Amino acid sequence: MSGAVTVGERWVALCGGVGGAKLALGLSRVLPADRLTIVVNTGDDFRHLGLHVSPDIDTVLYTLSGLSNTELGWGLAGETWQFMEAMERLGGPTWFRLGDRDLATHATRTTMLAEGRSLSEVTAYLAGRLGVGPAVVPMSDETVATQIDTDEGTLAFQTYFVGRRAQPVVKAIRFVGAAEAKPAQAAVEALVGDDLAGIIVCPSNPWLSIDPLLAIPGWRELLAARRAPCIAVTPLVGGQAVKGPTAKIMGELGLPLDVAAIVDHYTGLIDGFVLDAIDKDCASALKLPTLVTNTMMRTLEDRTALAEACLGFGRRLRARGPEAA
Amino acid sequence: MSGAVTVGERWVALCGGVGGAKLALGLSRVLPADRLTIVVNTGDDFRHLGLHVSPDIDTVLYTLSGLSNTELGWGLAGETWQFMEAMERLGGPTWFRLGDRDLATHATRTTMLAEGRSLSEVTAYLAGRLGVGPAVVPMSDETVATQIDTDEGTLAFQTYFVGRRAQPVVKAIRFVGAAEAKPAQAAVEALVGDDLAGIIVCPSNPWLSIDPLLAIPGWRELLAARRAPCIAVTPLVGGQAVKGPTAKIMGELGLPLDVAAIVDHYTGLIDGFVLDAIDKDCASALKLPTLVTNTMMRTLEDRTALAEACLGFGRRLRARGPEAA
Repeated sequence: MSGAVTVGERWVALCGGVGGAKLALGLSRVLPADRLTIVVNTGDDFRHLGLHVSPDIDTVLYTLSGLSNTELGWGLAGETWQFMEAMERLGGPTWFRLGDRDLATHATRTTMLAEGRSLSEVTAYLAGRLGVGPAVVPMSDETVATQIDTDEGTLAFQTYFVGRRAQPVVKAIRFVGAAEAKPAQAAVEALVGDDLAGIIVCPSNPWLSIDPLLAIPGWRELLAARRAPCIAVTPLVGGQAVKGPTAKIMGELGLPLDVAAIVDHYTGLIDGFVLDAIDKDCASALKLPTLVTNTMMRTLEDRTALAEACLGFGRRLRARGPEAA
Repeated sequence: MSGAVTVGERWVALCGGVGGAKLALGLSRVLPADRLTIVVNTGDDFRHLGLHVSPDIDTVLYTLSGLSNTELGWGLAGETWQFMEAMERLGGPTWFRLGDRDLATHATRTTMLAEGRSLSEVTAYLAGRLGVGPAVVPMSDETVATQIDTDEGTLAFQTYFVGRRAQPVVKAIRFVGAAEAKPAQAAVEALVGDDLAGIIVCPSNPWLSIDPLLAIPGWRELLAARRAPCIAVTPLVGGQAVKGPTAKIMGELGLPLDVAAIVDHYTGLIDGFVLDAIDKDCASALKLPTLVTNTMMRTLEDRTALAEACLGFGRRLRARGPEAA
C-alpha cells in the first residue's frame, strides 16, 4: 500500500448513512482500528413501535461488520420479514421496514437506554458485539431531531424520507434540540490532541446528514479550533447525487447543482475538497486545495482507494501547515 | 349437537394459558361468539426488552384464531427465530423466547398502551384483527404482578416459570397490585345480568392462573354475588397435572395431590366440579354436585365434547336453582 500509516496518527470521519458508510468502510480497511473514530449523524433517530431506531449508526455498524445487505442497500444480509408480515395482519404501521434480525439491534439499544446507558455506550457495546474495530460514536448523546419544513407542512425526518420517499418539496430543515445538545464525549476526545492527523467529511448529504452535527454549537467550536486539516468528499458527481435526494434538495433550496455549492456550504469548516474526475474542470474555480480522483465507490477496492487518497491528501495539507487552510 | 344453545344464554369462562385455552377453544366452537366472554389471567404479564408481553392473553388469542403452534404447544404456527438468533449475537437475554411473528403482537400492544389505550381495548383490537369471535377480556386493566416466594428468594413470575423452569421450591405466591386493581369493565358487564347462564373455571393452575383474578377484591365480590352457577374443571387427572407445575406446587404448599384439594381451594366460589373419569371414585367424597367425564383434551373433538358437557352441567345446576349452590 502506498499510504502506509504514519505512527501515531489518528483520523476522525464524520458520516451519515449509506453513502458515507462506504468511505468509512474504506477507511476502516486502511487504518488500524485504534486510529479511526467514526462520528455518526443521529438526527434521523426516532422512536418507532416503542423502539429507539438509529438508522445511520446501524448502517455504519452493519457496513463495517460485513453484515450489511448489499442487495437491498440497507439493513442486514439474509434478513427476513416475518415481523412485518405479522404487523400487517395486525393492521400496524408497515411504512418503516424493520427486519427480524435488525429488530434485535433496536431492542438491545432501547433496553440499554432505558437502563440509563448513554447512546455512546450502547453504540460502543453493539460495535463490540458485531466485531467492528474502529470507534463508532454518535454525534451527541442528546436527542437532536431533524425536521423538514415542506410544501406539505413540517414532517419528522423519517416521515419525510421513508414515509413520503423524500417527495415533498423542502423549504427548510431544522434540528430540534441541537442548540441544547453537546458533542458526545468520545467525539470530543477524538477531536483534540496533537496526534489528530485529519478530519474527513464523508460523501453524505450535507444538509440532512452533516448539518445536524454542525447545528450543535459545541461541534462548530470543536471544528473551528481544529489543528488538523478537515477535508470533505463530494456527494455530487457530474451534478447528480450518487445516492439519495441531495440534488433534489439543493434544487428546492435554490442552490446550483455543482460542487462549488457544496464547498460554499462547508466554508470555514474544510481545508480541502475531494471531487470526482468527471468534475475536474470545476476544480480551478474552487478557492481551496482540491484532490481530483474517482469518488464512485462501486467495489471494496474503490472504497479503500478513495480512503487512501483522502489520507494522502490530508497528510499533504497538514505538511503544508495551517496557512494552507 | 345435544347441547343446543338456549336462546339468549351467555357464558363466562375464566382462563389461564395453554390448558385453559383448550377448553376456551371448545366453548368457542359450541357457543355463538356473542354468547361467550373469556376472562384471562394477566398476572403473568411482564415487560421484556421494552415490550409489554401478555402470555396468557396471547395463548388464548392464538388458540382461538387457529394460529397457535400445536407442535411447540405455545406461540404461533410457522414461527421463526431470526430475532432471537440476532439477540444472541448481541449478547442480549434469550431466556424468554420471542418469535419473529409473535413480536408483532407485543409491539402492537406496547404501542397502543403507550398511546393511552387500555389493555381491554388492545386485547379487543388484537382479537378482531386475528378473527377471534368471542370477547377476550383481561382480568383487569391494572397491573397485577404474580411473584413467587421460593427457596431461592422472591422471583418475578416469568423468572420463576420460564427462566428457572418452575424448579425452585414454592413457599408462597403473591399478587402485587391486586388489592388496588379492579376487574376490567367488560368482565364486570359480562358477569351481571339475568341472561348469564354460567361461569366456567377452565382447567388452569388454580394457584398461578386463577388466584391472581381472585386476589382482586372486586372479583371476589362479583363472583360471590353470582346468580348463575360457577363450575370448575379439574386441572388434576389421576393425581397428576395435565400440564405445568400444578402438582409440584401443591406438594410444595403441603397439599394432598387430589381433586378434593382443588375443590377445597375453590370453596364458596364454585357450585359444581367436573372431574375426570379416572378419578370417579373421588366424586362421592366431594360435598358439591359433580360431573364425571373425560377431561383430557387431546383432540378438537375432546375440547368441544368437554365444552358441551360443561354447558349441560351448568344448565342442570341452574335448573335446580340457588339451593344447589
